[in-house]
Amino acid sequence: MVTRTVDLRSDTVTKPTETMRVAMANAEVDDDVLGRDPSCFRLEEEMAKITGKEAALFVPSGTMGNLISVLVHCDIRGSEVILGDNSHIHIYENGGIATLGGVHPRTVRNNEDGTMDIDLIEAAIRDPKGELVYPTTRLICLENSHGNTGGRCLSVEYTERVGEVAKQHGLKLHIDGARIFNASVALGVPVDRLVRAADSVSVCLSKGIGAPVGSVIVGSNSFITKARRLRKTLGGGMRQVGILCAAALVALHENVEKLESDHKNARFLADGLNEIKGLRVDTSSVETNIIYIEIEENSGTTAAKLSKDLEEYGILIMPMGTSRLRVVFHHQISDSDVRYTLSCFERAVAGEPNENGN
Amino acid sequence: MVTRTVDLRSDTVTKPTETMRVAMANAEVDDDVLGRDPSCFRLEEEMAKITGKEAALFVPSGTMGNLISVLVHCDIRGSEVILGDNSHIHIYENGGIATLGGVHPRTVRNNEDGTMDIDLIEAAIRDPKGELVYPTTRLICLENSHGNTGGRCLSVEYTERVGEVAKQHGLKLHIDGARIFNASVALGVPVDRLVRAADSVSVCLSKGIGAPVGSVIVGSNSFITKARRLRKTLGGGMRQVGILCAAALVALHENVEKLESDHKNARFLADGLNEIKGLRVDTSSVETNIIYIEIEENSGTTAAKLSKDLEEYGILIMPMGTSRLRVVFHHQISDSDVRYTLSCFERAVAGEPNENGN
Amino acid sequence: MVTRTVDLRSDTVTKPTETMRVAMANAEVDDDVLGRDPSCFRLEEEMAKITGKEAALFVPSGTMGNLISVLVHCDIRGSEVILGDNSHIHIYENGGIATLGGVHPRTVRNNEDGTMDIDLIEAAIRDPKGELVYPTTRLICLENSHGNTGGRCLSVEYTERVGEVAKQHGLKLHIDGARIFNASVALGVPVDRLVRAADSVSVCLSKGIGAPVGSVIVGSNSFITKARRLRKTLGGGMRQVGILCAAALVALHENVEKLESDHKNARFLADGLNEIKGLRVDTSSVETNIIYIEIEENSGTTAAKLSKDLEEYGILIMPMGTSRLRVVFHHQISDSDVRYTLSCFERAVAGEPNENGN
Amino acid sequence: MVTRTVDLRSDTVTKPTETMRVAMANAEVDDDVLGRDPSCFRLEEEMAKITGKEAALFVPSGTMGNLISVLVHCDIRGSEVILGDNSHIHIYENGGIATLGGVHPRTVRNNEDGTMDIDLIEAAIRDPKGELVYPTTRLICLENSHGNTGGRCLSVEYTERVGEVAKQHGLKLHIDGARIFNASVALGVPVDRLVRAADSVSVCLSKGIGAPVGSVIVGSNSFITKARRLRKTLGGGMRQVGILCAAALVALHENVEKLESDHKNARFLADGLNEIKGLRVDTSSVETNIIYIEIEENSGTTAAKLSKDLEEYGILIMPMGTSRLRVVFHHQISDSDVRYTLSCFERAVAGEPNENGN
Repeated sequence: MVTRTVDLRSDTVTKPTETMRVAMANAEVDDDVLGRDPSCFRLEEEMAKITGKEAALFVPSGTMGNLISVLVHCDIRGSEVILGDNSHIHIYENGGIATLGGVHPRTVRNNEDGTMDIDLIEAAIRDPKGELVYPTTRLICLENSHGNTGGRCLSVEYTERVGEVAKQHGLKLHIDGARIFNASVALGVPVDRLVRAADSVSVCLSKGIGAPVGSVIVGSNSFITKARRLRKTLGGGMRQVGILCAAALVALHENVEKLESDHKNARFLADGLNEIKGLRVDTSSVETNIIYIEIEENSGTTAAKLSKDLEEYGILIMPMGTSRLRVVFHHQISDSDVRYTLSCFERAVAGEPNENGN
Repeated sequence: MVTRTVDLRSDTVTKPTETMRVAMANAEVDDDVLGRDPSCFRLEEEMAKITGKEAALFVPSGTMGNLISVLVHCDIRGSEVILGDNSHIHIYENGGIATLGGVHPRTVRNNEDGTMDIDLIEAAIRDPKGELVYPTTRLICLENSHGNTGGRCLSVEYTERVGEVAKQHGLKLHIDGARIFNASVALGVPVDRLVRAADSVSVCLSKGIGAPVGSVIVGSNSFITKARRLRKTLGGGMRQVGILCAAALVALHENVEKLESDHKNARFLADGLNEIKGLRVDTSSVETNIIYIEIEENSGTTAAKLSKDLEEYGILIMPMGTSRLRVVFHHQISDSDVRYTLSCFERAVAGEPNENGN
Repeated sequence: MVTRTVDLRSDTVTKPTETMRVAMANAEVDDDVLGRDPSCFRLEEEMAKITGKEAALFVPSGTMGNLISVLVHCDIRGSEVILGDNSHIHIYENGGIATLGGVHPRTVRNNEDGTMDIDLIEAAIRDPKGELVYPTTRLICLENSHGNTGGRCLSVEYTERVGEVAKQHGLKLHIDGARIFNASVALGVPVDRLVRAADSVSVCLSKGIGAPVGSVIVGSNSFITKARRLRKTLGGGMRQVGILCAAALVALHENVEKLESDHKNARFLADGLNEIKGLRVDTSSVETNIIYIEIEENSGTTAAKLSKDLEEYGILIMPMGTSRLRVVFHHQISDSDVRYTLSCFERAVAGEPNENGN
Repeated sequence: MVTRTVDLRSDTVTKPTETMRVAMANAEVDDDVLGRDPSCFRLEEEMAKITGKEAALFVPSGTMGNLISVLVHCDIRGSEVILGDNSHIHIYENGGIATLGGVHPRTVRNNEDGTMDIDLIEAAIRDPKGELVYPTTRLICLENSHGNTGGRCLSVEYTERVGEVAKQHGLKLHIDGARIFNASVALGVPVDRLVRAADSVSVCLSKGIGAPVGSVIVGSNSFITKARRLRKTLGGGMRQVGILCAAALVALHENVEKLESDHKNARFLADGLNEIKGLRVDTSSVETNIIYIEIEENSGTTAAKLSKDLEEYGILIMPMGTSRLRVVFHHQISDSDVRYTLSCFERAVAGEPNENGN
C-alpha cells in the first residue's frame, strides 16, 4: 500500500496552497471579456512590470501563450519562424502554429545547452524581397530555460546577440519563457534583464511557481492589443477569470523564492543518482529544476520498468523513450521527499521489493 | 452619485456566489492535462448525463466550444458548414472557423424565430461527389436559444427535422447551446430531449447560470477524444482546472431553477416598457431572458443617449446600432431590480435627471 | 447519328482558332518563372493598358486569379471579405479563400441584376478597431458581368458607388471580371472606365474570347508583386508560358469584337424560346451572352429530360436544377447554329424524335 | 558582343523544339475542366503507365504537384509530414504546405547523398493515438534525384526501405520526382520500378526533358480523384490544356533518351573544372545533370564575380551563396557547348577578358 507520493512527473502537477485557496475565495472579479476584471488587471500589471514590458495578457495555458505570440508576430500570410528543432513549440504544441496559423517553421539545431548557433540562425533568415520561392522570415523563437535539454539557461549575452540579429534583419524575437523564473533564479539575473531583447515573452504561472492555471504573455501595447483579439478568436477569453489570477498573484509572491531550493534538490538528486551503478546523470547540465537520467545498458532495467518499479514506492516519474527518465522539481517537493526518492531509486535499481509500503 | 447598479448588459456579468466561492476554495483538483482532475471529471460526467451524450469536455469559453465542435466535425480540408446568417458563430466569433480552421461558412437566412427554412438548408447542401467546384458540406449548426433574435427557442420538432435532413445527407448536427438551459426551461423540455438529434452541443456555464468561467461540449466518445486533442492545440488545456469546475457544478445545481424567474422578469419589463411612449418591445418574441427594445423616431432619444442616461441611474444596458437596446437577465437581477429598472426607463425617456442619486 | 454539334454548355468550350495555333507554333518564349518570357510580357502589358492598371499577371485560371486577388488584399490573418451570396467566388470556387487562405466570407444578398444593395454592404463592414469578436473587413468583391444572374452588367455608376464605400472605410475593391469584356461591349463602356474604381480585376481569356487557357489579374505594381509570389506558392508559376500568352493575344485582338454578335444571338434565341409553349426566358435579363430558360410545370418535360433530348440533336446544354437550363454563347456559335438550336428546341419540346440525324 | 549563349542556370530554361511546336499547333483539344481534353488524357495515361500507377493528373508546375500531393495525403487537420531539411519542398516552395494547407513539416537531416537516415525517420514518426501534444504523422517525402545535393539518386533499395517504414506505421510515401527521369537513366532502372514503393509521385516535364510547361502527379485512382478537386481549388484547372500536353508528349518521346548525354556532359565538365586551379568539384557526387562548383579562397574570384565574368562570354550560371556555383545540364546543351563552357571557365578564372566576343 502506497502511503507517500512524490510526484516528479512535471512541475505542472502542484496543488493550490491554502493561501491560494483563500485568495480565490475572496477574489474581486468582473467580466474580463468586457475588460473589467480587477484581479486580472493586477496580475497583468505586475507581470508587465516584472518582465519590463509595456503590457501583459493572461491566457489559459503556455501553449496558447506561444501560439498567440507567434501568430501575432507572423500575422501576414507566408511567414516563417526560426526556432529550435528541439524546442517545446516545435515538438510539444501539436504543430499549432502551422495547423491553425499557417506559419512555416524553419528549425535550427538546438545545441545541448539549448542555444542555436548564431550563424545558423542568420543563414536561415529569408528576406521578403528575396527569391520568389521563399517564405518571409518574421520571427525567431528562443526558449529559456530550455526544457528538452534539461532546463538549461540562456544567458543575457546570448539572448542579446540573437536580439541583435533579429533587429538587423527586421525580425521579432519571442522567448518561450515557460520557466523564465527558473532561469532568472539560476542565473541570478532579474527577469526583465533576461528578456530585454525580446519583443514578447510567454511566462507560465502553473509550472514551478504552482498557480493552478494560466500563463501570461507580455510585450508592447500594440502587440497585446492584437494578442487580446486573437485570444478571443481562439476561445481563450474568460469571464470572471480573476479567480485564477488571484491564485497566480499568490504564486508570484510566495513561490518564486522557492525555486532556488528546487534547483538545489535537483543537483542533490543528480549527484546521488550518479552513485548508483547503472544510472548516469550529466550533472553539468543540471542548471535548474529538471534532470534527465540515462539508464545504462548493463543496468538490468529500462525506463519503463524502473518508472513502474518506482511507482510502487509512490515515486512518479516520466519515462522518455527506452533508456531515459525525466525528473522535474517544484515547490511541493520537500528536502525529505528528495532523500526518500533517492533511497527508492537505490532499492528499485537493486531490485528490492517495496515490502513495507512506504 | 450612483449607489445601485443593475447590470443588464449580458448574462455573462454575474459574480460568483458565496457557495461557489466556498466550493472553489475546497475543490479537489489535479492536473487535468494529464487527465486526472476529479472535479473536472465530475462536471463533465454530469453534463454528459444532462445532455444525454456519451462524453463531455470542459473548455474555457463558448467560443472555444463552438470552434472545437465545428473543426472536429469538419476535420477534412475543403469542408463547408451550413449555419444561420444571424448566428453567434457567424457574427460574433471572429470568423475563427475560417481564419483558424479553413472551414467555409455557407449561411442560410435566419428567420425571426431563429430557425432556418428546412428547404433552404437542403438546397445549400453540397455533396462530396458533386461538382468539382464545390466544397463538401459536413455540418449544420443551430443555435438554441437564438441570441440575435432575442433568445427565441427552437422546438424539439424543428430540431429533429433538421437532424433528419442532416442524417439523410450524412452530415453532422451541432447545436450552439450557449443558452440551452434557458430554452429547456422556457419550453418545459429536458435538455437531453432538446438536443437528442444533435451530434454535439456546446453549453455555456458562465451565462445565465452564473459560473465564473467555462463551457462544456458534449458528444460521442470519439468526438470528445478528437475535441480533447484540438483543445490542447488551441491552448485550452488547463492544469488544476477543477477550481472552475467546482464553481460550475454549484451553478448547475443552484441556478438552473432560477432561469424561470429571469424569463418572468424579462416579460414583466417588456410589458412595462411597451407602456412608455417612444419605446417598443415585440413581446411575442420574449421567450427567455433577452429583450430587444426599439426606440421610435419620435421618442426624442437614441440608443446611445438612452443607454448613457440610464447609466446615470446605475442601469447598464447595451446599445445595438442607433435605435435598439438589448437587455439580458440573469440570476443576480432581482424582482426589485426589474421594477427599479422600469422606473428609471420612465424617468430617462421623460428626460428627468437623476437628482437624488439612486 | 449526330453530325452537327452546338456546344452551349459554357463559353469555356471553344477550340483555338487557326490564327491562335499559328501564333502558338511561332511564339517567342523563355522561362517566365525567371521573369523572362517575352510573349507573357506582351500580354501582361497589353492587359494592364486595356484595364488602365499599372501591372498585370498571367495565371492559369480565373479561379486562381480570384483566389490570389482575395488573398493578397486579405494577407493579414483575421480578414473578412464582403461578397455576393450568389457570386462565382462564393459558390463555384470550392470555398478556396477560406479553405486555403483562412479568409472569412461575409455574404450580402445579390439582387437579380447582380448588384448588392449599397446600404447592406455598408452594414456588413466591420472595423479593425471594432468589437473584439469581429474579424476585420478588408475587401469588397463585385462580379461583372454577373454569371449566376444570367450575365447581367454592373454599371460604371454602381461600381463607383461601391468604390467610394470601400475607400471611405479603407477597404479594397476587387472585381471578378471573368466576363468583363462582355460587360464592356454590352454597356458600350471601355474596360478601363468600367473598372476604374477597382484595386484589382481578374479577367478571363478562355471564356467568350476563346483563348485556350488563362486569366490575367491586374492592379497596382505592389499588388502584382505580391500576387506573383503567391502565384508561385500556389504552383501557378509556369515556364515557357508564352505559348499560351501568344494565343491569348490573338484572342484579344480578334475576338473581343465578336462578343456583340454573341449578345445578339442570345437575345434572338431568348425571343424565339419565349414563343415555345412551356419555356420561358426573362428577356429583360439577357444583357450579354447567357440565358436562363425556365421550364414550366405544364411543359411535359424537365431540365434533365430536355437537355438529354437536345443532346440527340447535337445541342449541348447545361441543366441547372430540375426546371432550369443555362445557355452560353461564344465566338464559335454561328448565326446558323442559333437558328438550328431554336428549331431543335421546338422539336424536342414537341417530343419529335431526331429521325434524320442532323 | 555576345553571340553565343549557353544557359546552364537550370534545366527549366529550354525552348520548345520544332517537333513540339508542330505538335502544339495540331493538338486535338477540348475543355479539360469538363474532363474532355483528348491530348491531356493521352499524356496522363502514358505517365500512369511509365510510373506504374493507376492514374495521373496534369498540373501547371512541380510546386503544385508537390503541394497537391502533400495536401491530399494530409487532408485531415493536424497532420505532420516528415521530409528532408534540404529538400525542395521544404526550402523552395514558399512553405506552401504550411501556409496554405496547415500541414506541419518535421524535417530530418538530409545526408550528402540525398537520403535521410532510416532510424531518424522512424524516430520522428508520431502516432495519432500518441501524446495529446503531438500532431499526427501521415506522410514521408523523398526527392529523387535530389536537387540540393547535386542531383544524387536514391536507389530502389533505399526507397523500398523507406516505403516499408511508411507501411508499418500506416503512413503514405510521396516522391518528389521532378527529375525522376534523370535518376532512372543514371541508375539504369525503369521509372516504375524506382517509384514502386511510393503512393504518389510528382514528375516534372519542363525540366531536363524540355516540355514548355507542366508536371504530372501519379497515384491511385482515389488519390487522383481527390487531387483533381484540389487542383481546381488551387486554380490549376485549365481549359484546352491539351496544347501543353501535346508538347509534353513529344518531350517524353524524344528527350528522355537524351538525358544520358546530359549526365556525360556534367561529368566531362566536372573533370575539366577540377583541372582549373581555384575551382573544385566533388566528382563522386556528379550522378546526373547537376554539378556544384566550389570556389577556393585562394582562387582570386568569388561566385558573384565568376558568374558575372562568365556572363560576358555568354555562359549563364547560378551563383549559390558566396563561393558556390550551380550548373545544370539539359537537352539543349550540346557537346560543343560544354567544351566552349570549359574554355570560358579557364579564361575567366585566369582573368582573361572576352576580347573577341564569342
